[in-house]
Amino acid sequence: MATDLPLNPHPDRLLPAAEPVRSIARRLHQTVRDLPIISPHGHVDPGILADDTPFTDPTALFLQPDHYVTRLLHAGGVPLAGLGVGQGPLPEPQARAAWRLLCGNWRLLAGTPVRYWLEDVLTGVFGVTRQPSAATADDIYDQIAEQLSRDSHRPRALLDRFRIDFLATTDDPADTLAAHARLAADPGVTTRIVPTFRPDRYLEPARPDWATAVKELGAGDYRGYIAALEDRRRYFREHGAVSTDHSHADAVAEPLDPADAARIFDQALSGQATEAEATAFRRHMICEMARMSCDDGLVMTLHPAIHRNHHPPTLAEYGPDTGHDIPTTVEFTRALQPLLARYGTHPNLHLVLFTTDATVYSREIAPLAGFYPSVYAGAPWWFLDNPAAIRSYQQAVTEIAGFSRLSGFIDDTRAFCSIPARHDMARRLDAGHLADLVAAHRLDEDEAHDILTGLTTTQPTHVFKLAAEQEPRI
Amino acid sequence: MATDLPLNPHPDRLLPAAEPVRSIARRLHQTVRDLPIISPHGHVDPGILADDTPFTDPTALFLQPDHYVTRLLHAGGVPLAGLGVGQGPLPEPQARAAWRLLCGNWRLLAGTPVRYWLEDVLTGVFGVTRQPSAATADDIYDQIAEQLSRDSHRPRALLDRFRIDFLATTDDPADTLAAHARLAADPGVTTRIVPTFRPDRYLEPARPDWATAVKELGAGDYRGYIAALEDRRRYFREHGAVSTDHSHADAVAEPLDPADAARIFDQALSGQATEAEATAFRRHMICEMARMSCDDGLVMTLHPAIHRNHHPPTLAEYGPDTGHDIPTTVEFTRALQPLLARYGTHPNLHLVLFTTDATVYSREIAPLAGFYPSVYAGAPWWFLDNPAAIRSYQQAVTEIAGFSRLSGFIDDTRAFCSIPARHDMARRLDAGHLADLVAAHRLDEDEAHDILTGLTTTQPTHVFKLAAEQEPRI
Amino acid sequence: MATDLPLNPHPDRLLPAAEPVRSIARRLHQTVRDLPIISPHGHVDPGILADDTPFTDPTALFLQPDHYVTRLLHAGGVPLAGLGVGQGPLPEPQARAAWRLLCGNWRLLAGTPVRYWLEDVLTGVFGVTRQPSAATADDIYDQIAEQLSRDSHRPRALLDRFRIDFLATTDDPADTLAAHARLAADPGVTTRIVPTFRPDRYLEPARPDWATAVKELGAGDYRGYIAALEDRRRYFREHGAVSTDHSHADAVAEPLDPADAARIFDQALSGQATEAEATAFRRHMICEMARMSCDDGLVMTLHPAIHRNHHPPTLAEYGPDTGHDIPTTVEFTRALQPLLARYGTHPNLHLVLFTTDATVYSREIAPLAGFYPSVYAGAPWWFLDNPAAIRSYQQAVTEIAGFSRLSGFIDDTRAFCSIPARHDMARRLDAGHLADLVAAHRLDEDEAHDILTGLTTTQPTHVFKLAAEQEPRI
Repeated sequence: MATDLPLNPHPDRLLPAAEPVRSIARRLHQTVRDLPIISPHGHVDPGILADDTPFTDPTALFLQPDHYVTRLLHAGGVPLAGLGVGQGPLPEPQARAAWRLLCGNWRLLAGTPVRYWLEDVLTGVFGVTRQPSAATADDIYDQIAEQLSRDSHRPRALLDRFRIDFLATTDDPADTLAAHARLAADPGVTTRIVPTFRPDRYLEPARPDWATAVKELGAGDYRGYIAALEDRRRYFREHGAVSTDHSHADAVAEPLDPADAARIFDQALSGQATEAEATAFRRHMICEMARMSCDDGLVMTLHPAIHRNHHPPTLAEYGPDTGHDIPTTVEFTRALQPLLARYGTHPNLHLVLFTTDATVYSREIAPLAGFYPSVYAGAPWWFLDNPAAIRSYQQAVTEIAGFSRLSGFIDDTRAFCSIPARHDMARRLDAGHLADLVAAHRLDEDEAHDILTGLTTTQPTHVFKLAAEQEPRI
Repeated sequence: MATDLPLNPHPDRLLPAAEPVRSIARRLHQTVRDLPIISPHGHVDPGILADDTPFTDPTALFLQPDHYVTRLLHAGGVPLAGLGVGQGPLPEPQARAAWRLLCGNWRLLAGTPVRYWLEDVLTGVFGVTRQPSAATADDIYDQIAEQLSRDSHRPRALLDRFRIDFLATTDDPADTLAAHARLAADPGVTTRIVPTFRPDRYLEPARPDWATAVKELGAGDYRGYIAALEDRRRYFREHGAVSTDHSHADAVAEPLDPADAARIFDQALSGQATEAEATAFRRHMICEMARMSCDDGLVMTLHPAIHRNHHPPTLAEYGPDTGHDIPTTVEFTRALQPLLARYGTHPNLHLVLFTTDATVYSREIAPLAGFYPSVYAGAPWWFLDNPAAIRSYQQAVTEIAGFSRLSGFIDDTRAFCSIPARHDMARRLDAGHLADLVAAHRLDEDEAHDILTGLTTTQPTHVFKLAAEQEPRI
Repeated sequence: MATDLPLNPHPDRLLPAAEPVRSIARRLHQTVRDLPIISPHGHVDPGILADDTPFTDPTALFLQPDHYVTRLLHAGGVPLAGLGVGQGPLPEPQARAAWRLLCGNWRLLAGTPVRYWLEDVLTGVFGVTRQPSAATADDIYDQIAEQLSRDSHRPRALLDRFRIDFLATTDDPADTLAAHARLAADPGVTTRIVPTFRPDRYLEPARPDWATAVKELGAGDYRGYIAALEDRRRYFREHGAVSTDHSHADAVAEPLDPADAARIFDQALSGQATEAEATAFRRHMICEMARMSCDDGLVMTLHPAIHRNHHPPTLAEYGPDTGHDIPTTVEFTRALQPLLARYGTHPNLHLVLFTTDATVYSREIAPLAGFYPSVYAGAPWWFLDNPAAIRSYQQAVTEIAGFSRLSGFIDDTRAFCSIPARHDMARRLDAGHLADLVAAHRLDEDEAHDILTGLTTTQPTHVFKLAAEQEPRI
């Protein structure tokens, strides 16, 4: 392979290749290309925005925290240690060495959205014009590092440049939300930046840190525990939160008799709960979270069925979120029936279902979203956030439930700079999908344009309740 | 969105967009476009055909009975009450108000086959030329209502106009089949209209109405019960029935020792059977149904694995079949092994497998249909009767089992007027699939034409045993 | 259907139909069309190559041993007896009669890869120019039979003509490998032909022949059994083996405490092990096989989750491998976790995962292969070795894990003459997939060319460790 190739993303990238579809898709994409970004769920650290801390170097920005990238290099034989995974700030020589590993193994990313996003960011944000390779690694490192030292590439400047209107972070219920408070108080911040209530570790008595976490919430008994969670939700809402997020081993929501719940809570607090009881309690608490959402209006999002930390030696050496979380099968129809029987038509409930098991889109998620006004089909998540899987999702869900049941795009990223690239990818793929429908004479182009604009703006605004007045929807 | 747009389905709708495939597909479709319709499984009420009762109004015709439509409106926030669901004949003001809700929420149907079928019917059967909207709702209502009052739009006239050669309804084993007898005796009816034996409630001891139903069959013990079922099958065959239909929670067919079956029957009749015993009995009876099919030649169709009435409050208020039946996973390989070990190569058995879990097409249904001469891959059913899922089915099944193992198209509808639109959609998609194979130089166009004609005519004729003399098959 | 049609596979067959993709795909395919074949896993009988025995007739070559073909004819109503299945060498009249059944039912194969391969072989290897049919059957039979009697169509001559550089067979651990020894000693054989260690029946105490098989290995206790397996692996490696192959009911790898394993071994040998113990032992042995692979470097391939011999009457009459092995669901994420926790990053382990359950490609196989350097995504297997399923695999796996985690194409065939057709099909489909990425501006054509060449040559060489020096990879 040549080692010094130009890097210049094509204006028609990701659009369908054959005419007449490409021309339709190009016209559609142009109408939404420059619209502001709404990012209702993701993992950006609010601290970097509150402090506007300059990014230190390309490796800290692109490589160390992004398990999408590091897992691919690891699979290709590059040890995580060399990439600075789990090591905090790196001295310049190590950071540069890690960057060389990324660039020298650029081939490993071919065909993946990870490379697509990186290329988009490198060119669009940093003006890189040469493809990363062993030969170009140092020059690109220097080029990026130089720009990162400028005010134009500090987090706040990028936030403005990216035209992000709304950005949700993901936060522990015990978080003081101090960074969010500072952001909210700062008139220079025009993006609405809000926390998301993510209580996983408080809802799983089987976790070793559960008892400690619960005690830190100030909960001595079940009643106090429920009250504490309700109180923290209130605190989050006061700081702008619009949603809660839940990621457990399954999606089961099965209410317990309150007395049973209280009994298991007490047993778990003293380390006496069985595994089955702990699971039953967690499933009960998902129902409780839905009940609270009906009360307080927080949107509820589920990201279930990931086998976390599949490789214990890597967990031990590098910590969690280091690329070895592996999907498993998921089931929603039976799992959510008790919850939906109670709350499925409650006007306050918005329940957004995400999956890394694509089989449930047509079998379960779309049929559920196609009946329950509370259920929305979350955009393809994690491993499925790629062009082929997105195409399957678009077809599977809209054929069964229409466009009005989609969540709109969710980037779910911790790679701050990739947010525009990810949203643009989604807009291109939505344009392509709609262009297919237009070319098959199933929609006229005007309606396709309305739908595309809706998916980009009014739909996430509606689903995540971002405006008091409901705008017209798809 | 504009509110007064033309409605004129394009002649090339649903055909592949890019050349050279579109031209091939267009040529193929033209050769089958006007062939008569064979509808071997559906839910049209035979009474409306026997009585030739005029349809009362657009809402009664298109909206109230069609849970495909009402569930989408419900998901979009329209209460079922306003749509007349479960309410029987509506006074004109309420019928018109319901119609306005449909037209005013037309956007909710965008991208779904439901809208595709409705548009086809509105233009093709009723000459509507404007897209439904809040502004056009009343005019369209009046236009359709006026036509429904004419002889040209009574059920029998439409039956002729639709060129339906064969139509099967779905009927309870205890039904007297009086409507069918009248239809058969009427020389003015040129369509062959036959009942289908659907014994679900007689085979599930766990249902609250089972004991009553079984007693109404005149069955006091297991031997009498089996004889009664055989007798009712005979009665159905005498009235033209060609098939039986079965829809249970799973597809398991597991024979019991007759003594065990008799014991469970007795226990169930006195309300003493456990849930496990009731399930075992139902699975045993599926084997018995296959045995009877080998004896009497009725085709056996399975529609398993739907979680019925997922939302109990809706069931309580509006009844069953109101849009909240949700698919679950299904398994055929192990489930049907005992049945196929016994009867899989019996010359009299035709077993047609339907699914709403698309994963089984390539994994189970096609491999089974690709070995057992008795097994056919049923056309995509219910939630999967849409262009994208049909494309996946076509590819998954024919690559593994060829075209000769397909059932041909099954509309399975209770929306009488949509039958032509649904069959035409299937023909267009079959033409598109075959055109893809021609364009990839895997079939020549003559053979593709033969296959398309076969899928439309000889294949359902063969699979459902509609002709004593077997015509040439695919 | 006409009965005497020309047979002339189109040069662009299987390439995407629409421009600009077709031209790109055509250019890509041309660069790899004539590269030698690497076949790391298949079921060719090494004896026919060692002895260079002429093939006797078309039926013995194409029909009797190939359950891909016979199952389709059986499903279409042709009894297996008439096809010579399980009957050994047929007298000429019966062989010719069987051939007529194949040709007369050619329509049953339409749309399947089986027909695609046969057409490619008939034209490419035997110069047949007319489509098989009842009318042409005898002529084609004679034409092929005549050629089979020539030296040009003996196994060794075809091996050279097919440009097969590497060919692995599949062998019982107790095999003397005499045929392989003769092939290795023969300077006239330029293809590297090696055995594959396939120990299934030695690892499943639930099989009726397990105790006998284990005793024949000379194993009296667990320690001796492990030593015997290690010894046979050594013997296979000495005869060139590069891999082991495993096909069990599931993919679970769960180590036992050695004392428990020894206890179950003893119980099983005396017929005392329960079914649960037998299963636990088999799952333990898969872990042991991985451990041995880390020690001796043999690549480990898994082909799990097939329900073998689904139709007992056919098994009784015709034997195994007669078309009624049916896939079931498979699970890898949890199943392989214990194995991967131990050996997943061991530099000596290469673990290639195959499936007939396509749902696991994006959900499990690609995420595993996208982290563990030892895991590779095996090419679509058996029922999935067809154009549509291959396209899904290509997209699902490469979007998540890139190209470097693919196994390269595996033909897995016992139909010797179809090897070139199958590899060419794979190259055409890879060219089509890469052309799609080029046309969507996700890869430039030079890189696509490098990847295609890599998939064809260096990737299987790397995955199956065919070269001591690692060549550059994708």
